[in-house]
Amino acid sequence: MPAFSRLVRFLARDGRVHYGDAILPKGVSDVIKAKQARVIKGDIFGKYDVTEEVADIRQLLSPLAYEDVKTVRCLGLNYALHAKESNLPIPQHPVLFYKPITSLAGPTDPVPIHPIAQDGSLDYECELVFVIGKKCSDVPESKALDYVLGYAIGNDISHRDWQLKRGGGQWSLGKGFDGWAPYGPAIVSTDLIKDPQTLRISTKLNGKTVQDSNTADMIFSVKKTISFLSQGTTLLPGDIIFTGTPSGVGMGRKPQLWLKDGDVLEVELEKVGTCVNKVEFTPAKETAKL
Amino acid sequence: MPAFSRLVRFLARDGRVHYGDAILPKGVSDVIKAKQARVIKGDIFGKYDVTEEVADIRQLLSPLAYEDVKTVRCLGLNYALHAKESNLPIPQHPVLFYKPITSLAGPTDPVPIHPIAQDGSLDYECELVFVIGKKCSDVPESKALDYVLGYAIGNDISHRDWQLKRGGGQWSLGKGFDGWAPYGPAIVSTDLIKDPQTLRISTKLNGKTVQDSNTADMIFSVKKTISFLSQGTTLLPGDIIFTGTPSGVGMGRKPQLWLKDGDVLEVELEKVGTCVNKVEFTPAKETAKL
Repeated sequence: MPAFSRLVRFLARDGRVHYGDAILPKGVSDVIKAKQARVIKGDIFGKYDVTEEVADIRQLLSPLAYEDVKTVRCLGLNYALHAKESNLPIPQHPVLFYKPITSLAGPTDPVPIHPIAQDGSLDYECELVFVIGKKCSDVPESKALDYVLGYAIGNDISHRDWQLKRGGGQWSLGKGFDGWAPYGPAIVSTDLIKDPQTLRISTKLNGKTVQDSNTADMIFSVKKTISFLSQGTTLLPGDIIFTGTPSGVGMGRKPQLWLKDGDVLEVELEKVGTCVNKVEFTPAKETAKL
Repeated sequence: MPAFSRLVRFLARDGRVHYGDAILPKGVSDVIKAKQARVIKGDIFGKYDVTEEVADIRQLLSPLAYEDVKTVRCLGLNYALHAKESNLPIPQHPVLFYKPITSLAGPTDPVPIHPIAQDGSLDYECELVFVIGKKCSDVPESKALDYVLGYAIGNDISHRDWQLKRGGGQWSLGKGFDGWAPYGPAIVSTDLIKDPQTLRISTKLNGKTVQDSNTADMIFSVKKTISFLSQGTTLLPGDIIFTGTPSGVGMGRKPQLWLKDGDVLEVELEKVGTCVNKVEFTPAKETAKL
């Protein structure tokens, strides 16, 4: 029962959805370019097999099925330069907020922008994402990485006016819309990434680099984050944690740079790969009265 | 296939855990006093049967099993007098934050207080809770209650220093500890509660009334809340929403009143019943390094 290296979930050519271990073509390191995967059978948080069955990937999906996700936590202001560009002090403790599981999306999914968020101030945030693999609480830093299933890259799409001005100071409203947390392209195992604090992380907007940093600059490392968040709080297999974004977001630029319909975002994490998501302004399904 | 009236989950005398429809003894209206329930079989969000099998209740559990809960949302400042006692403006839009599913607990469970939250500023918040029964998004107010499975009473236990001073302005840290969202004792159906905005809601601390209000005073009604939150955001069966607390919390009192080890909280909602939860200061399982 070999463990996975790069856990993907995908729609196969035959129309079925599988978990799999991505197969990288020679010379390719980005999972988003994988064309095939070894099918995984069983419980990815328990007993599973990476089988010999190779399936063709038609589309990569969000790495965890909704029913396998528990709670989605996010950190804010976890890179010093980003705190500075946000005109906010460097936090003493991790700044925690949440997204609903419905915000999760796959590495090539479009990001739907509902009419109430089409009025400017729409922004990107590349983030190191990690997934909890084993139930834990009150974890000391020295053991924290034992509870990680693996790492991904995510984009914490944010509408700054809903986040900062219309939500009574709580950030959730501007960050929780459907599909506003694409992540992937795989969950890369802790065997392949032994130290998550040495990884280049970046964003391109329509091909131009707008964020370019390294997870070495995180204020609260993955270890510290797990130790802190698990105090009196049980972390469950399938909990997903977005660890905050470096500087370079649209809000912090001069002039400010807001996303438009049709923009293409690429967020990339070294040793993991890229998520490529197109911004798509959408109609409301029904007009909800405000 | 009659629908449930008062959905409970319970440990039966025979050691099994069931969903059930609580049977109220003659003259009793509070589900916490129910001794028996009709066992429910099937999917409570889909096809289920309230069977003729009557089981004895040994202990009422949190009304939904963890695996049936999706996302836990909470509103802040949703009663005008509570906004005033918090020295915060009346919000223009619902103020949204989240709790992790691990914060949920049953109607008679003790509330564990971890060492990092034993230093004062510990508070209670009685809240009308509702559960989404059907997937929905962009719901107009006129149809909003069609998507409600039912109503409960909950207690949004809060550590004010972690909530307001140590979390960078985001409230989540001070509200998300294990067991800090007891709710129940049942989920009362929309047949029994046709209008959720007419219900007396109150808290007793060690037998003394400290909050006493009515859901008529909510700034954003259940209808408005569903319509607002569902904009561009899919609400799922098993989403739980805490709708904010009225005035009378410990933080707003003069002098301020903080919970202590051994305190007993009773939160009560008319037509639903009571949750009775004892505050229990606990040791950490391991000492996590801050």
